[in-house]
Parts: sequence; structure tokens; C-alpha cells
Amino acid sequence: MKVIIVGGVAGGATAAARIRRLDEHAEITVFERSGYISYANCGLPYYIGDVITDPEELTLQTPESFFKRFHINMKIHHEVISIHPDRKTVSVKNLENGEIFEENYDKLILSPGAKPTQPRLPGVSIDKLFTLRTVEDTFRIKEYINKNHPKSAILAGGGFIGLELAENLKELGMDVTIVQRPKQLMNPFDPDMASMIHNEMRKHGIKLVLGYTVEGFREKDNGVEVLLKDNPSLQADMVVLAIGVTPDTALAKEAGLELGIKGSIVVNDRMETSVPDIYAAGDAVQVKHYVTGDDALISLAGPANKQGRIIADNICGGDSHYLGSQGSSVIKVFDMTAATTGINETNAKKSGLEVDTVILSPMSHAGYYPGGKVMTMKVVFEKETYRLLGAQIIGYEGVDKRIDVLATAIHAGLKATQLKDLDLAYAPPYSSAKDPVNMAGFMIDNIAKGTLKQWHLEDMDKISKDKNVVLLDVRTVGEFNRGHMKGFNNIPVG
Amino acid sequence: MKVIIVGGVAGGATAAARIRRLDEHAEITVFERSGYISYANCGLPYYIGDVITDPEELTLQTPESFFKRFHINMKIHHEVISIHPDRKTVSVKNLENGEIFEENYDKLILSPGAKPTQPRLPGVSIDKLFTLRTVEDTFRIKEYINKNHPKSAILAGGGFIGLELAENLKELGMDVTIVQRPKQLMNPFDPDMASMIHNEMRKHGIKLVLGYTVEGFREKDNGVEVLLKDNPSLQADMVVLAIGVTPDTALAKEAGLELGIKGSIVVNDRMETSVPDIYAAGDAVQVKHYVTGDDALISLAGPANKQGRIIADNICGGDSHYLGSQGSSVIKVFDMTAATTGINETNAKKSGLEVDTVILSPMSHAGYYPGGKVMTMKVVFEKETYRLLGAQIIGYEGVDKRIDVLATAIHAGLKATQLKDLDLAYAPPYSSAKDPVNMAGFMIDNIAKGTLKQWHLEDMDKISKDKNVVLLDVRTVGEFNRGHMKGFNNIPVG
Repeated sequence: MKVIIVGGVAGGATAAARIRRLDEHAEITVFERSGYISYANCGLPYYIGDVITDPEELTLQTPESFFKRFHINMKIHHEVISIHPDRKTVSVKNLENGEIFEENYDKLILSPGAKPTQPRLPGVSIDKLFTLRTVEDTFRIKEYINKNHPKSAILAGGGFIGLELAENLKELGMDVTIVQRPKQLMNPFDPDMASMIHNEMRKHGIKLVLGYTVEGFREKDNGVEVLLKDNPSLQADMVVLAIGVTPDTALAKEAGLELGIKGSIVVNDRMETSVPDIYAAGDAVQVKHYVTGDDALISLAGPANKQGRIIADNICGGDSHYLGSQGSSVIKVFDMTAATTGINETNAKKSGLEVDTVILSPMSHAGYYPGGKVMTMKVVFEKETYRLLGAQIIGYEGVDKRIDVLATAIHAGLKATQLKDLDLAYAPPYSSAKDPVNMAGFMIDNIAKGTLKQWHLEDMDKISKDKNVVLLDVRTVGEFNRGHMKGFNNIPVG
Repeated sequence: MKVIIVGGVAGGATAAARIRRLDEHAEITVFERSGYISYANCGLPYYIGDVITDPEELTLQTPESFFKRFHINMKIHHEVISIHPDRKTVSVKNLENGEIFEENYDKLILSPGAKPTQPRLPGVSIDKLFTLRTVEDTFRIKEYINKNHPKSAILAGGGFIGLELAENLKELGMDVTIVQRPKQLMNPFDPDMASMIHNEMRKHGIKLVLGYTVEGFREKDNGVEVLLKDNPSLQADMVVLAIGVTPDTALAKEAGLELGIKGSIVVNDRMETSVPDIYAAGDAVQVKHYVTGDDALISLAGPANKQGRIIADNICGGDSHYLGSQGSSVIKVFDMTAATTGINETNAKKSGLEVDTVILSPMSHAGYYPGGKVMTMKVVFEKETYRLLGAQIIGYEGVDKRIDVLATAIHAGLKATQLKDLDLAYAPPYSSAKDPVNMAGFMIDNIAKGTLKQWHLEDMDKISKDKNVVLLDVRTVGEFNRGHMKGFNNIPVG
């Protein structure tokens, strides 16, 4: 069996290694356009910030080490330029000498990934303007910083890469501004939760220019001027575009593969494309959202690796299925951790679901043991059925733990009320006898049983017009005096 | 409705508060024998070790604060000495003045807890010999230490309390020895996993005297001599007995309630005892083990609090059910964390289950991001069905997270093979794209599909006699040379 893999990172590299483990005799060739394989994609911002100092840490596997261990041909600087499904071959261009050759396959795996979205704006190609996706991009930014010692940077886009890069450039001592059209950073979060991310960013000196439209770039005074619509321009010594990624599927399109959202490759749950013997994995494919069942684009490393494994199984005679992506993710925002799984309230409502939420602020561990920190947790569930739809947590300790517990509960199809029953491990340094996840379950159980009738901020208009309603704020006098809503009376519960 | 609660900690205090939340008019009285209510039981060893420095942290709630907030009568230093189910009253002794009075109830909740097991050994009552269960016990030990500056301590018993106390006394600069009959500390762990706990304890200078039987105690040279069977005695400035706890159910027994294991109170899943209108919660009750379905005694704070909440629901007209305890627990052992959920291999085999296990040593987070630590994870599952039965993890970072994910998976009834599908949150500071729990799932999936045929240490005898078997050690030469099993040939996989 001869297997050709397009793309040697995440899904492609995982598939290659597992095919070898399953089939001693398979002939496996990986064509990777860049100079690096199986690299630590998610670590790139941390290399720029000197958190990861050794470049070899990013590129632990080399073509040589991969061949030595797995007997897999890793051809770097080789770009597959076309697929010929009719005769089961690919045309490959050796980027070092320009040579083009044709190579046949029994099975073809596409793992081309996604590329940074490039806006069609004037000045987008000037040389102090960067994107961050590959090891080469990373070294380019690092080299620019080392050589030119920029004092300021503007990041266009406030998603994962934008935020991680902002933190890392700030830690290098730079003045960092994030500019973007949406008024909220990190759209996997609802606005109420995202506001805590905004606060943490601002607390650490990151300037947020939200709700502004970038119209172009211009070189000026050894720096870059970022032109804003209807507003004065911004200026910095360098600019990084991080407005998102687009599936890199020109090849798949040209070969006639069925495409979905944003040109992503359509696959079934065996990760087979619409063309026989061609599989696809990673950021380039369209997946089913595990919670909504909708088609979705979810660019994360976990799903890519799982998909690569599933393709290897299926190519080697197995029958493995990808169940969909749930969007579980976590990000370090300076001292804070922000994590999410499933869908948020905003998207749930967009999907036409009738949802309710609870928001709570439990301690990461027993209050009497030193070091416990408050976290804010939002759990989203379907009204009536109490199906668990998603969760968002922001805090300083134990956030990643609780999001993974909730991710597991969602995957297993637990109801939101069942969170109260989870038997989680407790000792004072790690948790409370009633874990934050249990607490969310208790609150939802109270709602389900009618013990608690909950009102949300958006109900205020309706409520305050009802003359039978007494508006009560039961916090302490001090808390009340630090800030409260108009029309509320304070009777402290204590 | 008049509710009487025996015992004002964990289950009792939780029930009291929730009854008030559910019923504004209930008359609630709690009788607590000790001088403290709702105290931080699990924090007591850390007060002795000065990790928790303010005694008020241990006893945040006072009878006054509880009354002020909940309008619940918390009668400390009051011991319920008998129950009269026929006339629905209890006899109560005021321990301060010796007065005895009778009080009627509509509903009675027993939350008496457990008491330290006192061996019937000579010298067990000498005054340098302590137990640790209550706030009073804690203050007694702390006072003894502050006054007498003991340089050494012997702890009889190596369970949770024994280990936490050992660490805390060691941190105070004392010379600490743990002595016990079993050859293994922490019996929720299998011997292979417990050996890592032994190493960590010894690394921090704790002397382990395992497999020795204590026969008695004797005062000597301002200290205590601990007499061992067939061996020279040990000596230290103080001794703490931590050989376990026994349900404190003399009261229940005398009232004719049905009793179970070790005299624990038998309850149904509504937490009702065998006598109408009497409920029980906490360390004193017998529970169903969630995994085996067997009757079990599980003394942990999480279950006690959940049970108290369930009793309150049922007393106030609801219908809540306790689903059983899964034994999820975690302990800090100096720099290490050891955690477990479900049942271990040893107990699974005792229960007559056909089990298999995987053991793996993944990193707590991506290897290229600083600070990642190796953990050792053991997952126990049923052969054929692949039902997830339990897990044990020992390591330095991220251990509590993975045990809670596995606890959730067990609670939800996931199969061990399904662990590979969990969509967990990944970013370099928190995890790997293939989380340790996913990795366990991949290994088990390989076993289930027949891709991997696994041998365990205990199969070695059988295997090494088979002439068709080649014994191969595929680690690096260096690893092989640091230690390997007899008969193995080294061919490094790399």
C-alpha cells in the first residue's frame, strides 16, 4: 500500500505515525511545503515571548528523526500542486529546485491546514506587517524583533493567536495594542464573560481598540500606520495580522472535492472526502459540531490529531469514526485562565435553542486553605430538557480542570442537573467538598425543581415594570455601596 | 415541622441550611457534642502544620452566625443520648451542666460521623498519645507541640490522616515515622502505584515502618515507646493513632436502627433509615459503591455534603436520591499529588470482576512548554465489556484534573475505549493535543481492536517459559542500562 500525505503537521504527522504502527509494509510519503514537520504550532507565540527559548523545542521531529523511527519519507519544501483522482496521482513541486514530478498513491490524505486570513487592504504587503502560522513566520517575527528592537506592536485581531501574541510581546517589554472590528475579544465567549478577559488585558497594559475597522496600512517613520475607518490612525513599530484563518483548500477545490463552509473540505465521519481513497483531517475540514449537530469549522489541535488517528485506522482496514468537535479550548491570559467547551449562550440562541444559564463564582479550592482563587463559571443548558450545551470559565486556578470535567459531561450526554451528582476528588489544596461543578449542578437542580426562579439582566425591563415585584439586593452593605442597580433595596442576607 | 439533627458538621450542617432554604417555617435544632459546628474537618492537619494559621479559618461558622443567618438553633456541647422512635423524641444531655431533657421531633437526621478507631492495646490512654478527628483534638495536639517542642513523632496508620499529618509534622521540623501492619500505605491505591507514594515520603525523610504490628505503648524518658511484635520497639516524643475510623452509631444501634458494615447505619437511596422519619448521612452510613454496587463505607466529605442536601429535599416534600459513592479522592504528598476514583485493580479482582489495566506516563502539559511534569496513570477496566472501573494517578501537576475527568467518565457510564473521543481543552500551559486521558483511551482502544496484545508483570513467569517468545526491551540504551529485567534484549525503538 502506498500512502501519500499532504501536510506534515498535527493530523498529517499523526496519521503517518499510526499507519506505520498498524502496517509494517506501507510505503508512506509526506509532502510538506514548509521546512518543518510535526512542529509545535500552539507553542509559536511562546517562542516569540522567550517562554520557550530553544528553537529545537518547537521542531522536535525532523525529517531524519521521523525516517529513522518510522521509516516514513518526510519531504519538506515539497508542495503538492495538483491531484489527479482519475489516475490516482499527485503532482509535486520541489520548492528548492523547481522540479515537478508525479507520484501515485493508493490512499491520499490531505492535511493542508489553514492559512492566516489576508484582508484585501492597501499596504497589506509591507514588510513590517507579519502573520503567525508557521515556524518560518515565527522565526521571521523573532528575527525582526531581535534586529530592530521594536517598542510597539499593533495586533489586528483578538482571537487565540492575537491574545497569546499580545501577552508574549508585552512580556518582552513592548507597547501592545489590539485593534479589531468586533467589540469583543475571543468570540467563543459570551460578552459577559469576555469582559473579564478585557479587564485582565487592560490590567496588564494592553490597549484595546475594539469596534474599529482597519482600512489599510502605510509605512511611516520606520513604523507602520494602521488606518482606521472614520477615526485617526494608529501607529506602531510592527503589525501582526491575526484576524483568523481560512482553510487552505485550493488544491482540493481544483481536484473537484466537495467543499463546505469557507471552502473547507467536506468529509464523512470516517474522514473520507467526496472522492474515493482521499481522506482529509485538521483545520481544512468541515466537522459536525458535537453539541448542535451543525456543520462547523473548528481549528484546534486536539480534533486534528484525533482525525489523523481515525484516518490511519480506516486506511489500514479498521472502521473508526469521528464523533464531531465540541470546541473545548483554553487560553492563558497573563495570570488568568479562560476556558470554554460546547456552545455559548449567544451561539445557542443563534442555533434556535431555548436556553437558560447559571453564573456562579466559586472558589478554586477550600477557602480556609491558602491560595484559593475565585473563578466565574457560566453553564449553558437547554430549557425543558436540561441538556448540557456548554460552559465558560474564567479565573486564576483550577479553571482548566473544571472545563474538562464539563467537557466530559457534555460528551457523555449528562444533563445539567446531573452535575450535582458527580463524585469528584476533594482535598483542601485542590477543591471543595462541593466542587464548583457540583455547585453549578445544585443551582440548576434548584431551577429544575422550581425551588429557584431565576431572573437575568435582560429580564430587568420587564420585571421593573411589574408593581408586584420587590427589587432586593441581598449582598452586604459594603458590596451594595460599591455599586448596585437602580431601584434595588439592600437587605443583606447575613 | 420540627427537625432535630444530631451532629453539626458536613452532612448535618448542610441539611440544616438547606431545610431552611426550602422551608421558611421549619423549626430546626442541631445538637453537636463538640464545641464546634460546620468546621473544616479536612483542614485540621494543615492547621497543625501552620499552613492554616488562623484557628478561626477552621471554624468559620459559629452557633451565633448560623442562627443569625439561618435561624437554626445550634446547640453545641449537647449530646443526644437516646432516641425514642415510638414517641418521636430524643433525650439530650447538656454536657456543660449535666442536665438531661427530652425533645420531640417530626423528622430526625443522624449525622454523628465516625470516631477514630481505638485499638485495645496496653498504654493506649497515656497522655502523649493523640488521635485527630475534631477541632478539640487538633488544638490539643497543637498545644502539646507548642508547649513541649517534641522532636519526633510516630504515627500509627498510613491512610489519609496519617499521611497528611506526617507531612505537616515534618514541615514543622519533626522527625516522623509511620508504622503500620499493612505493607502498603494508602490502600485505595494498588501496590504498584502506592510504591511511588512510599518513595515520595522517604524522599522527604519520613521513616516508613511497614509490615510491623503495634502491640502497645509505654511512657519512657519523657516520650512514648511503641512496642512492636517480634521486633525492637520504636520511640518518639509523641504518638498519633490514625489507624482509621469507625461509624459512631451506638445511639442508632440502641434505638434499634438496622445496621450494616462495621455498625454503620443502613439507609435507602432517599437516605431514610429503617425507622420512619429518621434519616442519616455522612461517615456513619453505609452506601452503595457506585461502581461495584456493593455495600461500602466511604468516609469522605463530598458524599456527606451531597447526602445532607438530599435529606433536606426529601424532608421538605421532594424526592431526591443518592446514587452511591465512587470513592474519588486526592491527597497532597509533599510536592506530589496522588488521586484515585472508582475501584483499584486489587479490589476489582476481589469483587470477582475480570479486569485489565493500562499504565502510562504522560506529561501534564506539552513537553515544549516549561514546567510540564510526568505523571503515572493507571486505568482499570472490565475485560470484554470495557466498562471503566477506576483510575489512579500519581504525579506533580494536573493530577487532580485528570482524576476528575475520569471520575466524570465513570459516573456517566462511558466505556474505557471512549476516553479517546473526549474533546478536552488544550493549550501548551495546560495540556497536550492528546491529553493524558485521551492517551489512555488510545491504548485501551488498541487493546480492544486487537492491535496491541498487552502483557503484565504477573504474566512474566508464563511468558518466559514459552520458547516462541522473544523478550524485547525497546527503551534507549541508557534507560536499559539503568535497570532492566532478566532475559530481555535491548533494541531501542528509536
